[in-house]
Amino acid sequence: MRILLTNDDGIYAPGLRVLRQELLKLGTVTVVAPATEQSAAGHSVTLLNPLLISEVLDDDGHTFIGWAVEGRPADCVKLALLELLPERPDVIISGLNAGSNAGINVLYSGTVAAAIEGAFYGHTAIAVSLEYDKKIYDFPTAARYARKVIEQILACNPPPGSLFNVNIPVLERGPIKGIKVLPQNISPYTEKFDRRVNPRGRTYFWASPEFLCPDPHPGTDVEALAEGYITITPLKFDLTDHTRLAELQRREWHLE
Amino acid sequence: MRILLTNDDGIYAPGLRVLRQELLKLGTVTVVAPATEQSAAGHSVTLLNPLLISEVLDDDGHTFIGWAVEGRPADCVKLALLELLPERPDVIISGLNAGSNAGINVLYSGTVAAAIEGAFYGHTAIAVSLEYDKKIYDFPTAARYARKVIEQILACNPPPGSLFNVNIPVLERGPIKGIKVLPQNISPYTEKFDRRVNPRGRTYFWASPEFLCPDPHPGTDVEALAEGYITITPLKFDLTDHTRLAELQRREWHLE
Repeated sequence: MRILLTNDDGIYAPGLRVLRQELLKLGTVTVVAPATEQSAAGHSVTLLNPLLISEVLDDDGHTFIGWAVEGRPADCVKLALLELLPERPDVIISGLNAGSNAGINVLYSGTVAAAIEGAFYGHTAIAVSLEYDKKIYDFPTAARYARKVIEQILACNPPPGSLFNVNIPVLERGPIKGIKVLPQNISPYTEKFDRRVNPRGRTYFWASPEFLCPDPHPGTDVEALAEGYITITPLKFDLTDHTRLAELQRREWHLE
Repeated sequence: MRILLTNDDGIYAPGLRVLRQELLKLGTVTVVAPATEQSAAGHSVTLLNPLLISEVLDDDGHTFIGWAVEGRPADCVKLALLELLPERPDVIISGLNAGSNAGINVLYSGTVAAAIEGAFYGHTAIAVSLEYDKKIYDFPTAARYARKVIEQILACNPPPGSLFNVNIPVLERGPIKGIKVLPQNISPYTEKFDRRVNPRGRTYFWASPEFLCPDPHPGTDVEALAEGYITITPLKFDLTDHTRLAELQRREWHLE
């Protein structure tokens, strides 16, 4: 099996390095990932600047592992598929992200955007993220769970272009309770900004780290993750609200 | 009616300025928009850097029109709703974007992301974009059409959090044929990169401007726009693939 591995934390991030070791048990792994951290990059792409690339070797100094791209996660997938990989991959894996990507965070996530970009090209793509608590991450354990979930997803023989979002709960909170397939939570988050004034008198704001979902809908990714389950959410990139579509199509619309 | 106006081309972009003039016919307009161009920013947000703001005046030198934010389109909507506006707006308008945002471009678009961010907060939000051909834009005519469409959407009394993506075809191709409510096209695009080597021997790639959708699905935004129709697509930000969800929920999943 040919695996393309990417992420949004950057090619030297521990989550990617550890997940690569696990994925090598499933097949050949080529990494094409951002040269620097691109968290919260969403599905941004680079249109106006050049995308520099570098070949990256493993710590042994001679094993080629892939390319670092001075761009966004979605740029990495585009370049991998169109320019860098000698053959199309069988699956695209994005992660292991430091921090969960559930609820509306799915939309902000560069990790998920990289997977969506792969699905644009008709590839099966899986984003995998590890929830954190006080910045403690047990990446090796999480990567083993990630591989187990990826193996089971691929055993379902998903049709081309299938897209999955996997989240692993904080491992320090206790044993994982199981694996649940659930929809994305869409209930709102609360967030805050810290207002300050710089030495030149200009106002600026810092986004607070307190970005909370106080009331997740029951039976969604956010709720189950908080309860200690690994969550799998199948995604699609058709944002059409088909319910409202039919209603609006019945109306008459006028140019003047 | 209180209108929050934003965009991804930046607060001084002609599309925003011209649309603001049209929206002033519908109510009070406050602009909170990026200080600089943020095209293809997707739903990226700024977590690690300060968001500087500046008050912006109209060309008369004294009429306050809003704030420029040194951040992403989605940052602008967050700051507007949480920090800058004295009252919540009745509607959020994002545009008038220079270039269409149909098909999978909806995912790359900062214009649409700003509207989605407004919907996260339960606001009705409308993204409006003008297709271009050879970089000719008739913004004043397009802004009049945009206002007509916005008026008709609001006359439907959309429930809170409703999200719409409006595209206006190139006006130089001939008279607009009408207005159609259609789903987002999800068929693939073709794109190319230009591979070059810099003077220090490093390889880099430029994204080509040829980003084409050779085979849009019939009855979608991309097809109708090419035929000369204004398109309206109701959107949602739940990316769950509910069809696949049910199928995957019937399976057994194992941790080991």
